[in-house]
Amino acid sequence: MKLVTLIDGNGNNQVAYLEDSDLFLLHFDGDMLELIQAGTQTLYDQVQQAKQQEALPLDQVRLIAPILSPSKIVAIGKNYAEHAKETKSEIPEEPIVFAKFSTTIIGPDAEIQWDQNLTNKVDFEAELAVIIGRKARLVSEEEALDYVFGYTCANDVSARDLQYRGKQWIRGKSLDTFCPLGPWIITADEVPDPQSLDIRCQVNDKMMQESNTRNMIFSVAYLISFLSAHFTLLPGDIILTGTPEGVGNARVPPELLGDGDVVTVEIDTIGKLINHCRVTTA
Amino acid sequence: MKLVTLIDGNGNNQVAYLEDSDLFLLHFDGDMLELIQAGTQTLYDQVQQAKQQEALPLDQVRLIAPILSPSKIVAIGKNYAEHAKETKSEIPEEPIVFAKFSTTIIGPDAEIQWDQNLTNKVDFEAELAVIIGRKARLVSEEEALDYVFGYTCANDVSARDLQYRGKQWIRGKSLDTFCPLGPWIITADEVPDPQSLDIRCQVNDKMMQESNTRNMIFSVAYLISFLSAHFTLLPGDIILTGTPEGVGNARVPPELLGDGDVVTVEIDTIGKLINHCRVTTA
Repeated sequence: MKLVTLIDGNGNNQVAYLEDSDLFLLHFDGDMLELIQAGTQTLYDQVQQAKQQEALPLDQVRLIAPILSPSKIVAIGKNYAEHAKETKSEIPEEPIVFAKFSTTIIGPDAEIQWDQNLTNKVDFEAELAVIIGRKARLVSEEEALDYVFGYTCANDVSARDLQYRGKQWIRGKSLDTFCPLGPWIITADEVPDPQSLDIRCQVNDKMMQESNTRNMIFSVAYLISFLSAHFTLLPGDIILTGTPEGVGNARVPPELLGDGDVVTVEIDTIGKLINHCRVTTA
Repeated sequence: MKLVTLIDGNGNNQVAYLEDSDLFLLHFDGDMLELIQAGTQTLYDQVQQAKQQEALPLDQVRLIAPILSPSKIVAIGKNYAEHAKETKSEIPEEPIVFAKFSTTIIGPDAEIQWDQNLTNKVDFEAELAVIIGRKARLVSEEEALDYVFGYTCANDVSARDLQYRGKQWIRGKSLDTFCPLGPWIITADEVPDPQSLDIRCQVNDKMMQESNTRNMIFSVAYLISFLSAHFTLLPGDIILTGTPEGVGNARVPPELLGDGDVVTVEIDTIGKLINHCRVTTA
């Protein structure tokens, strides 16, 4: 099923179930994170109830990021061999783990913003985002997908100048608005194989990235197992599984993002996430 | 004032005000993070009310970390010149920003644990931790300290082997239990100058780190201003301000942590944070 978070008429966040283009508001007293924490049975009960109400048309509401304040966003670097190559890096022997702060999260159609005095090398990275469904610690690769609540599209927006200054990437990865997510979460039962999804990124009319999640070096299941050997993954935690080749900064000459650009991340089965770029001066 | 989080007789977390060794439970319906979010007036009202109740003796309760689930833990690398030198690094020209996941947090007297098959190079780092009091974005250095809720002691426990593998430090910095915090938060009004505090780390009976926060390369005020130019700091967010020289891994030969070791971080005016080490095998 598809689950969204929307802003209702009173300016409040609400979780809803989406069927085709019909939205059914859940009468759940909490946000998506709390719904995930409440467990599968509550979710199914809520959806059954919601479907007995009248539907809202999708085009009459404003969607925001499906999940807003996970305890962590774990990101994986260079997880597609062709992307590692284009950045002149070795193919990693183990997952490269970094983080984005949750204050980076924005939703579909929202603006990716940056101050041109802080950075002028902003790049896109289409990624499959995994949403953890239940507490995971020392999970085997075989069992790992049982811990997935669902999937969404992500753009791991990166200020390349800040990312490489000081060597720790998080600074360039964590400007506010630098983690577009959405437009919805597809629950895991509808994605039996997360390693067979076409993934694309388009900037305005130009296709920039085009690959398939089968090209990941470390699979979703492997990543969950690997990460959970280091630390506890909590319900609602997000794993960004790395980006394929074609990023702007690796092109000759570089093709970075600019004011007014429209960036589209599309993943088959999952959905299409569109965001607009706006350059500011503080 | 001193504020603690404790486990009450029913196993629930409760925030309390500490005066000498008398504890006064706050009747606030929420944890420390929610209390900080509620603002200064609520805090003062709650403390006034609490002080009219009977006191509990400090030694009859179990304290846990004063704050449990901040939206982020921002950490600063090599922020003392002598520590940068002992790690054979250049003195940084800008703050080196990295992160620890909030699943690392433990409280006073709790166990720092690690699996010897995952790491066998675990090190201590005594640090002054800053707790943000209100939303900070594009804050000037002059105003920065107005955004501080309070201070506590932190140990930025680090698995050196994992930290340097893959180059992104977060993996070695984010094992569960790797961020002892506490024993309490001292509110900012009682720390007029955070750059004049003696800071020490002792392992068992041996003094390993001994410095003063005046030796920070980038002051607390500078760090808040710098970070807030990149992203929004939220109430309850924690900044770990870097560690002075004397860490175990830089010694010849290295003096790393082992099973049964007792690590004490002490910062004048703030308090003393004691934790025990336990090595496991998965």
